[in-house]
Amino acid sequence: MIRRTVGEIAASVGGTVEGDDARVILAVRGLEDAGPDDVSFLANRRYARKMAVTAAGCVLVGERDKAHGRTVIRCPDPYLAFAQVLRLFVPAVRPAAGVHPMAVVEGTATGATVMAFAYVGPGATVGEGSVLYPGAYVGAGARVGRDCTLMAGSVVADGCVLGDRVWLNPGVVVGGEGFGFVSTAQGHIKIPQTGRAVIGDDVEIGANSCVDRAAMGDTEVQRGAKLDNLVQIGHGATVGPDNLLVSYAGVAGSTRLGRGVVLAARAGVLGHLEVGDGVVLGADALLTEDAAPGERRSGVPAIDHRRWLRVAASLPELPELLATVRRLEAEVARLKESL
Amino acid sequence: MIRRTVGEIAASVGGTVEGDDARVILAVRGLEDAGPDDVSFLANRRYARKMAVTAAGCVLVGERDKAHGRTVIRCPDPYLAFAQVLRLFVPAVRPAAGVHPMAVVEGTATGATVMAFAYVGPGATVGEGSVLYPGAYVGAGARVGRDCTLMAGSVVADGCVLGDRVWLNPGVVVGGEGFGFVSTAQGHIKIPQTGRAVIGDDVEIGANSCVDRAAMGDTEVQRGAKLDNLVQIGHGATVGPDNLLVSYAGVAGSTRLGRGVVLAARAGVLGHLEVGDGVVLGADALLTEDAAPGERRSGVPAIDHRRWLRVAASLPELPELLATVRRLEAEVARLKESL
Amino acid sequence: MIRRTVGEIAASVGGTVEGDDARVILAVRGLEDAGPDDVSFLANRRYARKMAVTAAGCVLVGERDKAHGRTVIRCPDPYLAFAQVLRLFVPAVRPAAGVHPMAVVEGTATGATVMAFAYVGPGATVGEGSVLYPGAYVGAGARVGRDCTLMAGSVVADGCVLGDRVWLNPGVVVGGEGFGFVSTAQGHIKIPQTGRAVIGDDVEIGANSCVDRAAMGDTEVQRGAKLDNLVQIGHGATVGPDNLLVSYAGVAGSTRLGRGVVLAARAGVLGHLEVGDGVVLGADALLTEDAAPGERRSGVPAIDHRRWLRVAASLPELPELLATVRRLEAEVARLKESL
Repeated sequence: MIRRTVGEIAASVGGTVEGDDARVILAVRGLEDAGPDDVSFLANRRYARKMAVTAAGCVLVGERDKAHGRTVIRCPDPYLAFAQVLRLFVPAVRPAAGVHPMAVVEGTATGATVMAFAYVGPGATVGEGSVLYPGAYVGAGARVGRDCTLMAGSVVADGCVLGDRVWLNPGVVVGGEGFGFVSTAQGHIKIPQTGRAVIGDDVEIGANSCVDRAAMGDTEVQRGAKLDNLVQIGHGATVGPDNLLVSYAGVAGSTRLGRGVVLAARAGVLGHLEVGDGVVLGADALLTEDAAPGERRSGVPAIDHRRWLRVAASLPELPELLATVRRLEAEVARLKESL
Repeated sequence: MIRRTVGEIAASVGGTVEGDDARVILAVRGLEDAGPDDVSFLANRRYARKMAVTAAGCVLVGERDKAHGRTVIRCPDPYLAFAQVLRLFVPAVRPAAGVHPMAVVEGTATGATVMAFAYVGPGATVGEGSVLYPGAYVGAGARVGRDCTLMAGSVVADGCVLGDRVWLNPGVVVGGEGFGFVSTAQGHIKIPQTGRAVIGDDVEIGANSCVDRAAMGDTEVQRGAKLDNLVQIGHGATVGPDNLLVSYAGVAGSTRLGRGVVLAARAGVLGHLEVGDGVVLGADALLTEDAAPGERRSGVPAIDHRRWLRVAASLPELPELLATVRRLEAEVARLKESL
Repeated sequence: MIRRTVGEIAASVGGTVEGDDARVILAVRGLEDAGPDDVSFLANRRYARKMAVTAAGCVLVGERDKAHGRTVIRCPDPYLAFAQVLRLFVPAVRPAAGVHPMAVVEGTATGATVMAFAYVGPGATVGEGSVLYPGAYVGAGARVGRDCTLMAGSVVADGCVLGDRVWLNPGVVVGGEGFGFVSTAQGHIKIPQTGRAVIGDDVEIGANSCVDRAAMGDTEVQRGAKLDNLVQIGHGATVGPDNLLVSYAGVAGSTRLGRGVVLAARAGVLGHLEVGDGVVLGADALLTEDAAPGERRSGVPAIDHRRWLRVAASLPELPELLATVRRLEAEVARLKESL
């Protein structure tokens, strides 16, 4: 069990203690669940009222939050501090480097951890500090950078590339075949997918998500982008730096997302589009045209988000609206007759 | 080949024969496909007319269905009887217990079947009667109960838990990383996902579905819940007992579903919501607020199901409605002038 | 590096050269990226203006496209020619036949390539020329035809069937359990899924897609159908010949799709429906009733596509429409009073 004083915790996150800095803390818990041995956090003003009643031994708070007489650690970003403190109490475990006797490494994986049933194909390279869990696959000629994590059953197909510190959750497929066919009278003829899928530094991809290889050139997920589970990136698409793509978000072929784009859950973008920096698509939205930087869109097809909110609020009244208009038609007809 | 008389079948399901109880049956088939050697079933009154024309040697029917002169087995729930009889003719095959020489068991799996390329990490336990198919992964410190089935390539990540009689279809990921980041000027900083994913007894999870581990505490799928393929359960969410989640259903982080909730295909629930017992969401619905017990909702955002049906029926008339209102505006303007 | 003259390329696609047939070509690139050593293609009139400015050494064009003074190869279908030429410069690599010492073959796989950690169960057969990548699983009694490709971690569950030249991308699950339960007071009782999933010749299935086995009989994906990533086919459904199912398309149980059906991304079809030949569903559509051959549908629920386009165009005006109707109501009431 890991024990840290409030003072040690504050020092580790660059915060300032108000209260008992010698108090010993054993774990991190939410405001509702925390007890006297726990550090908690207030990251959202919506939960400020919980501060009055929490039993937490210490709370990470912002510069101006009320302490309610509790021991607090003031920090510029309490949510970030929470993330750091969590790691303090649950240190990351990296297995020792080495190749398990039941792994197969035909390329090179010096300084990496290759667990049982992981596979590194001929000509492939895996960087120092990277960990391949059981069933991870790095195909022929593929390149995996340093300090990557390839969880169980994740796939980097032949010739594809991961930068450094990339995290693939279980079942991720980087470099499956792009969906490209020429439709002829003899059926759909496959277009060879001869390109790559290239994943930038510090990208994380959620379980069972897919990034297809391109027919030519690269499909890219650029530096710092975070993809949730079951996300789909079509061939030749570009996911920009620091994008956030929530579960089931889909990007069709050849579309380019700018920097800091956010696709909420199940949002989709059709193919061959340009999506500007900072665009935000709401849950279930379908973007069918280019979007300028900073636009917020929702709906199918996606329109301005605020307008969509008003449309969505009006929609339940549609049946009564129809009835009213029919009545008005009749009344206007009568009025015309009566003149 | 398995042979059973009508009388034996009736006995096995607690039913009553009307007709020839010595007739020999060789297989189970639907009413349209069944022949004289087959037992069939009438589980839905919609198909009652098929009883008049089926060639089935015997039919499982309810207490009040018409026999049309055929040999029938009357039972309280013919659909349940069908499920039981199907198992009678196609017995479940469980491979013999033991660890394949090309499996790796670093924890304990006494009395379990561990097939080739399956992996049980250090400190992990797999209960008696459980079967790990090739490529199944049970991470360090994970616990798998008794009589579980982990099909090919299914994953129980480190420290996660399965109850008894859990069935994971191929590609299921229990315990992938929750999607949690603190967005800063330096990019999205990962919140360590130090919690678990915990799956209750008698849960079945469909192919390539994902249940994320929580940042703190547990993500739960409780006893008896059934999840279809490609379902997504976010970190810290709770799926209640006996829930039915159809394919692509998604539950965002920290949301709690009550008992007996049904999410139809592609229905989604946003994060931090409370969904009462017995709530039913229609296909493609997006629930954006709490739902009280027993509510039926559809649409994006989800509204009362019956209202949604009326809205959906009105929607195709919208273009004409717009034109009518424009005409009425002009007519009313003329009327006002003419007064 | 592969070198081909324009004349050789033209011969290989049955095209006619206009210009320098001795020019040496080293690669295939899009019109925007191509240089003097590249062959490019004009497959869509929308991009005809790029012909005037491309630096490509040679362009595959149709019979009537303008050459703009460049060396071109005229062919009946330039897009098909492009697919063929791409293969010319990046030949398909098939690993040599043989069973890796760390593979397990309990059935037969004569003339096939079985890579490390691939598994062929007892009684299963894998045809000549087929390749099983690491982690591929062919269950007991399953049959895989000739020249199939089972990429890393793809699954053909016990008793299921692939025809010839089938391509499974990584993580595909053929033959997971159908989602069938009888709901009782004691919970949801599983209906044994005793049927098969059967995949026809020349089918390709995208990464992490799922085709469930049926309770009885077969789930079918018929000859030449192409399924993108994360597609879901429910138990007992039939996907017709040459269907195109884009990512996240879903087909619920027992539904039958005819020949040449197209489901755009995230389109869904409810269960027990008949979908005629050549039906096209738009992105995000939900088909809730049978569709006659050739119908185009969009929306939730899906209606005629052209009507849906008009509805979608009207929808953003709904808030103003509501306001207008309320004003008209008031004006008509005043008019009635004033008479």
